Amino acid sequence: MPFNDTAVRELVERVCAGEVRSLARAISLVENDTPEAQAVLSACFPFTGHALRIGVTGAPGAGKSTLVDRLARSWRESGRKVGIVAVDPTSPFTGGAILGDRIRMQERLGPNQIDDGLYVRSMATRGSLGGLARTTADVALVIEASGKDIVLIETVGVGQDEIDIVRLADITLVVLVPGMGDDVQSLKAGIMEIADIFVINKADREGADRVEKEIRALQSLAQTHESRIPPVVRTIGTSGAGVPELLGVVDQTRQWLAAEGRLEVRRRQYWRARMEDMVRLALLKEARAHGLSPEDFAHHAELVATKQEDPYHLVPELVAEVFRARLAASTPRMKE
Amino acid sequence: MPFNDTAVRELVERVCAGEVRSLARAISLVENDTPEAQAVLSACFPFTGHALRIGVTGAPGAGKSTLVDRLARSWRESGRKVGIVAVDPTSPFTGGAILGDRIRMQERLGPNQIDDGLYVRSMATRGSLGGLARTTADVALVIEASGKDIVLIETVGVGQDEIDIVRLADITLVVLVPGMGDDVQSLKAGIMEIADIFVINKADREGADRVEKEIRALQSLAQTHESRIPPVVRTIGTSGAGVPELLGVVDQTRQWLAAEGRLEVRRRQYWRARMEDMVRLALLKEARAHGLSPEDFAHHAELVATKQEDPYHLVPELVAEVFRARLAASTPRMKE
Repeated sequence: MPFNDTAVRELVERVCAGEVRSLARAISLVENDTPEAQAVLSACFPFTGHALRIGVTGAPGAGKSTLVDRLARSWRESGRKVGIVAVDPTSPFTGGAILGDRIRMQERLGPNQIDDGLYVRSMATRGSLGGLARTTADVALVIEASGKDIVLIETVGVGQDEIDIVRLADITLVVLVPGMGDDVQSLKAGIMEIADIFVINKADREGADRVEKEIRALQSLAQTHESRIPPVVRTIGTSGAGVPELLGVVDQTRQWLAAEGRLEVRRRQYWRARMEDMVRLALLKEARAHGLSPEDFAHHAELVATKQEDPYHLVPELVAEVFRARLAASTPRMKE
Repeated sequence: MPFNDTAVRELVERVCAGEVRSLARAISLVENDTPEAQAVLSACFPFTGHALRIGVTGAPGAGKSTLVDRLARSWRESGRKVGIVAVDPTSPFTGGAILGDRIRMQERLGPNQIDDGLYVRSMATRGSLGGLARTTADVALVIEASGKDIVLIETVGVGQDEIDIVRLADITLVVLVPGMGDDVQSLKAGIMEIADIFVINKADREGADRVEKEIRALQSLAQTHESRIPPVVRTIGTSGAGVPELLGVVDQTRQWLAAEGRLEVRRRQYWRARMEDMVRLALLKEARAHGLSPEDFAHHAELVATKQEDPYHLVPELVAEVFRARLAASTPRMKE
């Protein structure tokens, strides 16, 4: 059934009222980039901006999911409503995150329990036109509009994808573990820059001191202009040890960021990058509609691959043609 | 000194003649995205397409550089001219690749030796407008135009960046090592799909059998439509053991790809994706010139971050305005 504007408005009203099935439906509309996606997001937008958005990233196998579950449970106990977006683009063969969604949701709740104040969504979409970071941000926005106080965005891995994804967070936790062979030095450069808090999880393992030393050494090299050095917290996700301390550090960090006006600065920076991305996508859609369909691209690529055309000359011509074609399409009546 | 068209043509003539200092100069023009970059690339383009482009990627610490050096040396011994682009975006604090450039070049050549048939370029540029994959591809193109038979593109890490970078390769080697704690399963999904050859380097370490078993297990799960399962070759980069076998496998793979017409298919696919990327970049430049400068973006982002504007409505309006502004700029005389 296609949605009209009224249907979208009613759906988003139910989302904002905390109705879980409507939330799942709204997310699907956004995630699948349906024609209704923009209307859903527009309707949700005014109801966002109040939640604290927390990014959790770090090396695979660092125990991020267990830690995120612990954090979510603690916040639930203090009455906060929590949303979780778990992004896992790494498991194409097993169905990965999509399959894991329900299993994890169940584990978080326990059997025969329903908690309307907790919503978990797993995502494994790869290769969509707008990219995973865009989709994650839009899904997080819809979840936030459903009245959550805290939205956790959890990623697998520490690559550029993950950095792009957690850019929407107000506070980012980078989770490391001792002795993974995965040295701190081998982490992507950007990770050091986005970390507000370092978490050494599985801290009962040998090598926790060494990891902390490496973090400190990189920090001193980084010579950041920040007046605050990101704290390092040790946790054991499986037992919950260190989680209360971590909650405290998250809260202090939030207060510090707010007092310094940095939350606002970050959100402004985020929207600036995000809107540039949205503009880029919108322009590409215009190009596809005006002379650069996938078939057109295939044709031109054929000419370039066989050396009949030089791409460095061809591309500017194609772009000029997009502008001409769109102009012709938008002003047919003036010429009649 | 700014370059005019004649100067660019003369520079590229010297590049094609194998003149090393001109090559370095041409690469710098391209790498720094100067106004001459497009002319340099256009002039180089007709002299490319004959070299074999080999991508080398894999987990950090897998010994890729040593292996690449071994391969380069072997090909040099059989008279082939070799170019190497080593991409390392991970070391922002130490100067990383840029500093390492000369040191590695020297190590490859030994003291007091000059080999005009080998050219090594390290790259660590991050955050350029077009992205690292674009710059790497353009630099590789210039190196190829200088008469190289083989161009090796070596990356650090196994994230999306690296996958994007090696997409330009005709053949991709994925290098793994035994017992890194970095399980094969934790590799980015795309890596399994781009590997033509798996190399288990440091194969004298314990765990080589286990890594090979994991690769085989993932391959059987992947159910690829390829009629050929990527071979696994064991090497010890430091001693050179297994390198002759690897050279043989690379050659067989090239022959198989060529016989099946797959090299052409790949290059067509590559140029298709590449041109889409170039179009995207060109469109964004148009947007920047017509109403969406960085300052404009900052202004709009401010309105969105403070909830005065809804980005999902605003962006389509801004894009429509770009088209109007460009039209107005391109047809001033028709209205007079």
